Amino acid sequence: MNEPPAEFSLIARHFRPLAGPGALDLLDDAALLTPPPGRQLVLTADTMVSGVHFLPTDLPDLIGRKLLRVNLSDLAAMAATPLAYLMTVSAPHDTPDAWFAGFAAGLARDQREFNITLLGGDTTHTPGPLTLSLTCIGHVAPGQAVHRHGAQPGDEIWVTGTIGDAALGLQALRGGIPDPGGFLADRYHLPQPRLGVLTPALVHAAMDISDGLVQDLGHLARAAGLAAELTLAAIPLSAAARAQGPAWLETCLTGGDDYELLMAIPPGQAAALQANTAVPLHRIGHFKPGQGVSVLGVNGEPLVLTQTGWSHF
Amino acid sequence: MNEPPAEFSLIARHFRPLAGPGALDLLDDAALLTPPPGRQLVLTADTMVSGVHFLPTDLPDLIGRKLLRVNLSDLAAMAATPLAYLMTVSAPHDTPDAWFAGFAAGLARDQREFNITLLGGDTTHTPGPLTLSLTCIGHVAPGQAVHRHGAQPGDEIWVTGTIGDAALGLQALRGGIPDPGGFLADRYHLPQPRLGVLTPALVHAAMDISDGLVQDLGHLARAAGLAAELTLAAIPLSAAARAQGPAWLETCLTGGDDYELLMAIPPGQAAALQANTAVPLHRIGHFKPGQGVSVLGVNGEPLVLTQTGWSHF
Repeated sequence: MNEPPAEFSLIARHFRPLAGPGALDLLDDAALLTPPPGRQLVLTADTMVSGVHFLPTDLPDLIGRKLLRVNLSDLAAMAATPLAYLMTVSAPHDTPDAWFAGFAAGLARDQREFNITLLGGDTTHTPGPLTLSLTCIGHVAPGQAVHRHGAQPGDEIWVTGTIGDAALGLQALRGGIPDPGGFLADRYHLPQPRLGVLTPALVHAAMDISDGLVQDLGHLARAAGLAAELTLAAIPLSAAARAQGPAWLETCLTGGDDYELLMAIPPGQAAALQANTAVPLHRIGHFKPGQGVSVLGVNGEPLVLTQTGWSHF
Repeated sequence: MNEPPAEFSLIARHFRPLAGPGALDLLDDAALLTPPPGRQLVLTADTMVSGVHFLPTDLPDLIGRKLLRVNLSDLAAMAATPLAYLMTVSAPHDTPDAWFAGFAAGLARDQREFNITLLGGDTTHTPGPLTLSLTCIGHVAPGQAVHRHGAQPGDEIWVTGTIGDAALGLQALRGGIPDPGGFLADRYHLPQPRLGVLTPALVHAAMDISDGLVQDLGHLARAAGLAAELTLAAIPLSAAARAQGPAWLETCLTGGDDYELLMAIPPGQAAALQANTAVPLHRIGHFKPGQGVSVLGVNGEPLVLTQTGWSHF
């Protein structure tokens, strides 16, 4: 009766080294967090299911890092600073110890990169696929979070980075398209949360692009009661995406997993935002009265898209 | 392109009515929480998997309530006051809308009972069993959380309520034992989080009993570097549990899902604790130098248990 059961030994070996201040070494019923004085907390939760949100063959360290990063991307979209996270892991019985070791190593690496620590969580078995859930906590000055609503007619539409690489990376990993340098697969495996890009005073509205540029822009437009018009030629594509040819353009515009920021910026303000960040920013369109998302082709003609993004449900 | 996809409509119908202050109607990337001034936050996360932590035939409103209550029980064990929660739901494709309606109705009912609201979360599909994860947030005065460590030699061991009913209820639901009034099944389906029972100044250590009295008492003893000795005749059993006869006693001592509180209380302090609560409290043993958990039978002889509790992993 002196030996703790397997669940506790697994937590001690792999997850306790990730625990930060207030986690009580993951030995208690709950964790303690002293909120930074005078700050508002920003909280988000995302789930990843094997075979749905990542490939069963993906390396465990990349799965751990992606799990953390998709949540950090939500904090980035609210202009929040990361603080801590809780995590639940439901794993099949035959999950090898080496999988947990790799998963925890990936989390440890990104904890250092993003200055965040583990507060608590739960580890259980499942007869189904590996299912990971993470609750991420950040903070902002009161009233300084950036929201999805707030775009104004005439606001410019800007994005960070390049669009569509992750959706193409998933195609590449499935063998559907070439990816000689592995750039596209890397963009699928390892999103870059764009923390620190947003300055609340310079941006009317923002969100991260998780379900595809067109669908997520639809959310931003709907939240403002406006229409959004994109210019196809302005949408930033990586060299690897351009190399796939025009047949894949629609995948870039509607595919998920970009985790780039989508912003509504008043005319003339973007330069000040660009001066504060090394992340590339591109203007891709504007908001106007009306509703819906339209995409203008190279001759100004509206394009017809056959799909608008993807829903995990 | 104007219609939100199915995921958003499901969230709007069933989960938006649960959203509280700071949840931003579940329309944004993350939620906002202004921590109660001068308080420490207490955070816990627990997962429930269909077929592992609840029966696939359990009613959806009871599943929702149990999900919330097992997390509230962790807050109760730290002497925290509930504040808000985030939740992730991974559901099979064929989950009927009525299931979500029932699940949300159960959550709504317990939100009112425990004065807590939904802050945010995520809803996805899974090819596996229904998997639910909840992160619960509470608060305490700084330094006033009760921990698992801290028991002293000579401290009395106390529990709330009765022990073993939920484990017997699971047996009853599987048809293994009679449960004429449904009392045992009800104890399995609907744990009672013992919020407000603990007074930090009167208790050296506490935890909630989720994995069986003997196993969880082992944690409390190990955290203090002490041995725990239980007196079998003192362990509170319900009339329905006693009716099962002595063959089921071991199930009561080692079975999971009690969600009663287990406390280390200095001699003479329990009366003050009892004066503050309507929840029945029973003294079942004491801590002493040494290690491990022993159970003394009716003639003072040590009992041999064949299992010490169960691990979800």
